[in-house]
Formats: sequence, C-alpha cells, structure tokens
Amino acid sequence: MKFNIALLAGDGIGPEVINEAVKVSDAIAKKFNHEITWTPALTGACAIDAVGVPYPDETHEICMAADAVLFGAIGHPKYDNNPSAPVRPEQGLLLMRKKLGLFANVRPTFTFPSLIDNSPLKRERIEGTDLVFLRELTGGIYFGEKGRRDDGETAFDNCVYTRVEVQRLAKKGFELAMTRSKKLCCVDKANVLETSRLWRETVQAMEKDYPEVEVSYEFVDAVAMRLVQWPNSYDVLITENLFGDILTDEASVISGSMGLMPSASVGEHTSLYEPIHGSYPQATGLNIANPLATVLSAAMMFEDAFGLKAEAEAIRAVVNKSLEQGIVTEDLVSKGSKAYSTSQVGDWLVANL
Amino acid sequence: MKFNIALLAGDGIGPEVINEAVKVSDAIAKKFNHEITWTPALTGACAIDAVGVPYPDETHEICMAADAVLFGAIGHPKYDNNPSAPVRPEQGLLLMRKKLGLFANVRPTFTFPSLIDNSPLKRERIEGTDLVFLRELTGGIYFGEKGRRDDGETAFDNCVYTRVEVQRLAKKGFELAMTRSKKLCCVDKANVLETSRLWRETVQAMEKDYPEVEVSYEFVDAVAMRLVQWPNSYDVLITENLFGDILTDEASVISGSMGLMPSASVGEHTSLYEPIHGSYPQATGLNIANPLATVLSAAMMFEDAFGLKAEAEAIRAVVNKSLEQGIVTEDLVSKGSKAYSTSQVGDWLVANL
Ligand SMILES: CC(C)[C@H](C(=O)O)[C@@H](O)C(=O)O
Ligand SMILES: CC(C)[C@H](C(=O)O)[C@@H](O)C(=O)O
Repeated sequence: MKFNIALLAGDGIGPEVINEAVKVSDAIAKKFNHEITWTPALTGACAIDAVGVPYPDETHEICMAADAVLFGAIGHPKYDNNPSAPVRPEQGLLLMRKKLGLFANVRPTFTFPSLIDNSPLKRERIEGTDLVFLRELTGGIYFGEKGRRDDGETAFDNCVYTRVEVQRLAKKGFELAMTRSKKLCCVDKANVLETSRLWRETVQAMEKDYPEVEVSYEFVDAVAMRLVQWPNSYDVLITENLFGDILTDEASVISGSMGLMPSASVGEHTSLYEPIHGSYPQATGLNIANPLATVLSAAMMFEDAFGLKAEAEAIRAVVNKSLEQGIVTEDLVSKGSKAYSTSQVGDWLVANL
Repeated sequence: MKFNIALLAGDGIGPEVINEAVKVSDAIAKKFNHEITWTPALTGACAIDAVGVPYPDETHEICMAADAVLFGAIGHPKYDNNPSAPVRPEQGLLLMRKKLGLFANVRPTFTFPSLIDNSPLKRERIEGTDLVFLRELTGGIYFGEKGRRDDGETAFDNCVYTRVEVQRLAKKGFELAMTRSKKLCCVDKANVLETSRLWRETVQAMEKDYPEVEVSYEFVDAVAMRLVQWPNSYDVLITENLFGDILTDEASVISGSMGLMPSASVGEHTSLYEPIHGSYPQATGLNIANPLATVLSAAMMFEDAFGLKAEAEAIRAVVNKSLEQGIVTEDLVSKGSKAYSTSQVGDWLVANL
C-alpha cells in the first residue's frame, strides 16, 4: 500500500520524537512492503515565528490531502503565562481540530508491567488498568461564543452542544465498547448542566441499538474520584470537551507511564496521531526525550487509519521489548542503569523490529 | 457566648452524623461555658417529601437568622439517574448557596498519620499533604443562563464571571495563604476561556497587595495531574465553581480519609459547615456511618464562624485520639478489630473531651 502522511513536528522536543517515529514507520513499511511519503508542514510556535500564524493555510492543505497526520507537540515558554497574547500556539491547535473536523479524541490509559511501580498509585490500585476516553474535541465551551461586557468587567464563555454532535461521538464510543469489554460510561454533570442533560438523553436513546453494551452514567466529579481509586473499573468513557481535557490528563498520570501514552484524534476529513506528553521545552535539542509515545502513536495510525493490525502489533512488540530490556531514555531508567538517547532508542527499535 | 445554629440534617445518613456532631458541640459548649440553641429545618429529599420543595422559605429564614448553619447531606436514590426530574434535591443545594450568598467553599485536604495507608497513593506521594481549595460557589456555569434551542436539539449553558466575584474569592485566598505557607495557586483554563482570562488578570492585579504571597497560575488539566503526582506541593488553591467541583473531589480521595473531610461555605449572610461525604443512602438508619467529618465540620464552625480556636482544637484533639485508639466506625476499622457504631463513636468523643 501507499500512504501520504502529513508530518507536523511542531515545537520543543516534537521534531526529535517525530524523527524516531518516522524511522520506525519507514522500517515497518519496508518490512511489510508499503510506501510512505512524508510531507512536513509547520505548526505551533515555529509556525508563528516563520509565517505569523500557528496553523498556516498551507499546513491545512497538506493535512487535508494526506491519509493521516503524525503530530509532535506544540508550545513554547515564551507564550506561557500570557494567555492574552494576540497569537498563541494553542490557537493553532484548536483551529486545526476544528478545520480538520477532528471531533473524537481517543485517549487510552494502560499499564506496562515493567513500569507499574512508576505509578503514584499503589500497585493493587493500578494493576490491570486498561481504559479509553473518547473526548469530544470540536464543540462545547472551547468553541462557543466568548467575550466581555460591561467595559471588560464581565466575561462569558458559552457551552453549546447539538444532539448530532453528541450522537457521532457516542456512536464511536458504543462501537469501541463492542470491540472491548462492552462497558461504556457516559461522564456528565447532568444534575447541573443542560448540555449534560442533552448528552445523557441522547446516549440513553442510543442504548437500544447496542443491547450488548452495558452503559453507566456518572457525574464528572465522581469520575475524578474513581479514576484515582479504582481506575481498573473503567473500560470506555465518553465525555464532552472540557471534562475530557481534565479527566484524560488525570487518567494519564495514574498509569505512571504518561511519557508512553499515544493518542488519536479522528474525524470527518482525516485523523491525527500524537503523543500526549507535550513539547517539554527544557529537554529541547538534548536528545534525551522519550520517543516511545510517538512511536506508539504511529502504531495507532497503522492500525486505525490504515487498517494494518500486524504492522501495529509489530511496533508494539518491539516497544515492549525495549522496555523489558531497559533500552530506555533517562525518564524510565532504573537506578544504576544506563540511559539511552532519543535516537539510540529509535535505532534500537529499528534494528530489532 | 450564645449561639443560634440552624440544623439542616438532610437525607440519608445526614441525621445520624448530625446527631453526633450536636452531642459533641453541646459537650464543648458546656465545657467552655457557651450556650447553643439548635433550630432544625428541612432540606433536600425530605423537604420535597414534606413540603414539595428542596429548600423551603421557612428553612431559608431559619438559616438567615442563625449565627451559622450545620448541614448533613442531601440526596436520595429515587432522584438518581433522573436529572431531568422537575424537582430534585440538588436544586435545593444550589438555591441555598445562592440565596445565602455562600460564595466561597473551603475544602481542606489533609492526612491523618494513622490513616495514611488508606490512601490509593503511595505513602511517599501523599505524606505531608495539607492543602485547601477555595472554590467559588455562586457563579460560573452553575448559575448562568441555560436552556434549549432548535426544538430541543441544541442545548447551552453560559459561564459568566464578573471581576467583583473573582476579587472577593481571591481576597479570601490571599488572606488564607497569609495564615499558612503563603503559596497561592490560581487554577484556570486561561489558554481557552475568556472567564479564565478575567480570573487570571484579576488575581495578577491583586498580587501587589500581598507581596509576601507567592502566586502561581496553573491550567486545570495540569492541576488534575499534579494533585495525583505531588499533592503535597500545593498549599492554597483558588478556582471557579465547576473546576472546583471536579478538583476538590479528586483531592478528597487522594488523602484516603475522604470520610473525615470537613468543609465550610462562607459568604455574605452566614456560613455553613458540612461533611463532604454525601448522603450514603445504603447506610441510612444502620448506625454505621462515620460521624467524624461532621464533627470536624463543627470544629471548623467553632473556629471560623465564632472565632473559638481552643474549642476547635479540643474537638480535633479528641478526634485524633479516637483514631489513634481505634474507636472508629467500620469504614476505618483495621482487620481483626472491632467496629464501633456511629453513636458509640459520638459517645466516646463526648466522654473523652
Ligand atoms: C493546549 C490546550 C488548548 C489543549 C486543550 O485544552 O485541549 C490541551 O490541554 C490538550 O488537551 O490537548
Ligand atoms: C450535587 C451537586 C449539584 C454539587 C455541585 O456540583 O456543586 C456537589 O457535587 C457538590 O460539590 O457539592
């Protein structure tokens, strides 16, 4: 098969981790007889620096023309703590999600047996955790009308959802649950919010189409608690944009493997794969960043965007092997062992595929 | 001194735990020569059953006339999973907060040395945790305009904040920080929300009035992570209503002592003290519920509402003693030990004051 992949390395450690994911993907393509064309494009702070906007039209064209997008990270300290700056990298992220119609953010949290002791949680609490959040990504309070009144003394943000938006996200949730433990949790705040009541009634109405799926409804505050107490009691969770922002990040740290968690954002026109760890500015250019989350994001891309399960499994297998054999960057190194550099880990993965 | 306290026992285990807090408060009053008049009033599901509304006018009058309000819990399973029911106990809670002007919810999370192993977190992560959230409680998306359009196909909730609302909450935060470690964290989502940008700029402008307080600004998703990773890195946190709902509940489970956490809601007309654990319907009437969170809420009331620190310390001391000596309800009992009933724990506290 032939693929055209848009390559958005972004800021900070983005280019370094992307580089390793490209090496591994090319090796997999060679092994399985595929042909990948990578098309790099600018996004984030580096796009602001180069052309003045964080998500240039040219980048958008490249993403639209691609079979999938592989994304690194965006964000730069010079934009931090200045959320009112006229142009910011995050705006590019939101614009990209909206223009590419990436309405479903797929955020798995799982554990690696060899890393379980990195978790802040006790072993018996975290063992066996394997959950997936589907976070709605193009609606809600992120994209509603916002502004000021009364000479700037009053600020407002509008949260809006339509039934159709809820349905398309929930459909993905039901379908995903069918391929897993058939448990779906709808996370809302239906005791307070009208948008949540729309979410709940819409999901309730869809239950009959998936009689095998056991659906539960939980309030967002209760989920924030149970994620810490019994994360392994969850399977698939669906939720709106802002709740998803908070809960997926909470979920990512409980595993102790945040530096390894991949993600996908899927939608109408294309799909995008990225590590969840961000741009980690302090490590930029040092060749120390952990490339595994990006490599595992590429595995998700092979499986979900291209339907190539064997290729994805091969990537996951070699990642597991590197973890077991301690071929890891300094963030995962155990006391007394040697840390490998970002590119050494990538080289090892390629050599051991 | 003479106090008039409104007593809102509410639903579920509310009446049972309130009963023990009253016993302990009366004993303290006797010991320190105060006189308490308790005025019971209806709220929650039991108020709906009795008079059709969850926060009757008569209850409001009683609260307004009181020096403080001691509150149990509200909620009943018959209203669960039916967030669209025309009358619900939670509406009473929101109405009460608004009408009493309880704009600041004070939610401490701390650890008890004897209970630290109950935490889902590893000991080294949770040890030394002693933080307080100030959650804004009468504004934001909870109280903005909400409704449906397009024949019910579109739902909306409006989040609104004024500078004055932010200032009065932040002022409490700065003042509280001054009495503690002088660290204040403002939790927002200023990279996305206009209301958060108003929060941040308002708090930034207040920094100069409290030069000793070290202020940090963190995004809500980052705080949801750090609370699990390094809860002991926080001191005082201020945030808006919905973020506070989620984060205070998350924070409450990390200590492993959720059943012991008190809270206060303070405001314009009066202040209200309540355990955070909720109505726990399964335990209703069984005399097994843990009364300590309510007893500790009474201690907060003595200290904060009446300015009686010695009285509060005496209550806290006897609670600590009961924990050390294992005079605890079944939720806290260690293997092989005997569980005490709700009223037995209360009796023991009174006898050992
Ligand atoms: C950078 C920010 C706008 C973004 C979000 O809130 O969606 C980030 O936190 C994320 O989760 O991808
Ligand atoms: C019952 C509900 C409306 C309430 C809230 O969301 O404020 C509760 O979760 C709380 O935190 O007191």
